[in-house]
Amino acid sequence: MSIFSALDYQMMSRAILLAKKGIYTTAPNPNVGCVIVRNGEIVGEGFHYRAGEPHAEVHALRMAGKKAEGATAYVTLEPCSHYGRTPPCAEGLINAKVAKVICAMQDPNPQVAGRGIQMLREAGITVEVGLLEVDSESLNPAFIKRMKTGMPYVQLKMAASLDGQTALANGHSQWITSSCARKDVQHFRAQSGAILSTSKTVIEDNASLNVRWSDLPSSVQEVYAQDQLRQPVRVILDRQSKLSSDLKIYQCGGDILQVSPQGNVALSLETPEQIDLRSTLSTLVNEHNINHVWVEAGATLASSLIQQDLVDELILYLAPKVMGSDGRGLFGVLGLEHMSQALDLDIKEVTMVGKDIRITALPIKKER
Amino acid sequence: MSIFSALDYQMMSRAILLAKKGIYTTAPNPNVGCVIVRNGEIVGEGFHYRAGEPHAEVHALRMAGKKAEGATAYVTLEPCSHYGRTPPCAEGLINAKVAKVICAMQDPNPQVAGRGIQMLREAGITVEVGLLEVDSESLNPAFIKRMKTGMPYVQLKMAASLDGQTALANGHSQWITSSCARKDVQHFRAQSGAILSTSKTVIEDNASLNVRWSDLPSSVQEVYAQDQLRQPVRVILDRQSKLSSDLKIYQCGGDILQVSPQGNVALSLETPEQIDLRSTLSTLVNEHNINHVWVEAGATLASSLIQQDLVDELILYLAPKVMGSDGRGLFGVLGLEHMSQALDLDIKEVTMVGKDIRITALPIKKER
Repeated sequence: MSIFSALDYQMMSRAILLAKKGIYTTAPNPNVGCVIVRNGEIVGEGFHYRAGEPHAEVHALRMAGKKAEGATAYVTLEPCSHYGRTPPCAEGLINAKVAKVICAMQDPNPQVAGRGIQMLREAGITVEVGLLEVDSESLNPAFIKRMKTGMPYVQLKMAASLDGQTALANGHSQWITSSCARKDVQHFRAQSGAILSTSKTVIEDNASLNVRWSDLPSSVQEVYAQDQLRQPVRVILDRQSKLSSDLKIYQCGGDILQVSPQGNVALSLETPEQIDLRSTLSTLVNEHNINHVWVEAGATLASSLIQQDLVDELILYLAPKVMGSDGRGLFGVLGLEHMSQALDLDIKEVTMVGKDIRITALPIKKER
Repeated sequence: MSIFSALDYQMMSRAILLAKKGIYTTAPNPNVGCVIVRNGEIVGEGFHYRAGEPHAEVHALRMAGKKAEGATAYVTLEPCSHYGRTPPCAEGLINAKVAKVICAMQDPNPQVAGRGIQMLREAGITVEVGLLEVDSESLNPAFIKRMKTGMPYVQLKMAASLDGQTALANGHSQWITSSCARKDVQHFRAQSGAILSTSKTVIEDNASLNVRWSDLPSSVQEVYAQDQLRQPVRVILDRQSKLSSDLKIYQCGGDILQVSPQGNVALSLETPEQIDLRSTLSTLVNEHNINHVWVEAGATLASSLIQQDLVDELILYLAPKVMGSDGRGLFGVLGLEHMSQALDLDIKEVTMVGKDIRITALPIKKER
């Protein structure tokens, strides 16, 4: 077990802060930050901004120049050991003659885990691992899940009244939540690789399901320039091919994957009428390089995803309204007969967004 | 407008803290605290513990003795000016020759408001009013509402899953919330003057609806001795006289008011089958001296109360569970046709209670 100093904690915290600057742009790459310190002084730092552009270590080493020699490098993720679009960072650190590398965590990809560390050690560099690991993990939940399981990280967004209604019986639902909550959704969409919905939702709401830069909070706009805007792929389940080109979703740019028996995308279908959600999600990873899926849909898709254990986070906006129980409920008919059949979650966070409540809850995975 | 010093704020804060020690025992009297200060030093302090026992000022004056002369008295509520079960506190302060009285607020009772202050001023004492008034008001929401409107303060407690279900379709509901949330309910019950429910709820759950000292949080037990336990009156709406003496509610001591056409309590009934909730509540004030009603019931009573603008606070426990929309909803069928008909609330507080979420929401009173 390594013992870390106060300086170590301080520098790794800074590296994590730097890494966060990439959360809207690095996908499907992970967010990584790097700080290089010599004699207690920061001589270089950087973060990964976008796939195909230099890694965090490269920026930090460039800034440090010759001062990297004998220095300690703090990196939020194990430096890579393979040639991709950029040369391996482990090699860069070796060539720069740093004396020590502290990583917050190993690369979760089982095919590379530890090789970067090994490369550094073989070159005589002291390597320590595990400083602020939990914080570093929370930088990249989607990248880590994909690497470990081959499945994307799925956030399910829903909005309801305090009594769990998503619409009145006649379908009226505009607006349950305030504009504040609807803007809050924008920064989640912007972090995702894909937005998953259904033709029903797209048609009923004539929803664009895109990221609107002007609706992002100013704190996000400051770090994420308008000309850098990355539109997540919109993935629309449309088993009866109901989408038509006059819908708003086709008017605002960005890619759309239409998932249907006659669709233009190769996605597994259980039967001609039924879409296999698990293989749809797995296809998004394997064929479209998407780690992180943000779902906005109605009760049918929501309950299918949650009952199939495919949801990692439920993001539930509750508006301070009472609508009665005769409207549309959040998850539709589940037919439970015993309280033990209820789906359990853990509350991760509860916060106010304007006048609404935002609850982040993690479904407790069933034992299999 | 008065200008208060840092010492003034400090002393009134202390008086408010003292007043809080009575929140389980003073009903239907208000919570009041008093601190007497001479030359910057506390020479006396006290709080009102129970109706019929000495007021806060009496305790503080007794402790101060002759040191009260020329001192400043900080009182969270205007000193009383009338002979009740105790002599008027204004007279006590005059006799003790205090030089100055600072009150957080006037007595809200329109028949007495300002008379205590006037009595003090006529005796040559300097009086200032309004220091930490909001904090003082929050000590006594029920007393103040009763004095201003003649109606009791009504807290409606409900518990549901995240998707707003209070039971499965077959009625199963034990348990939606955790034992932590169920214990949390105890301290609310203990602060109320009456617990309002229906025979349906009492029979279905075989509920006692009493305060169980052993279930109170230890922080409450420390200030509220077991032998001081005050059982709120249980008021059960029972229009078809279904309550029977073998129910638990009759086995555990404490008063019960059964509200029914054939009931033993004089409560207004709109028709033989219909209980008039507004006049029931008003009768609790006028004939039973109850300021503060805690409601635990199902969708029917809850929606009647909330639709008739009779609820001051909704206390909603949400358990981290999904139960589906085919069970029992929080407020039953409301038949809304436009979103503008939804009942609006303001979120006052959101907090975790164990694994559950507790939401305190204030219904926004409709304009009439």
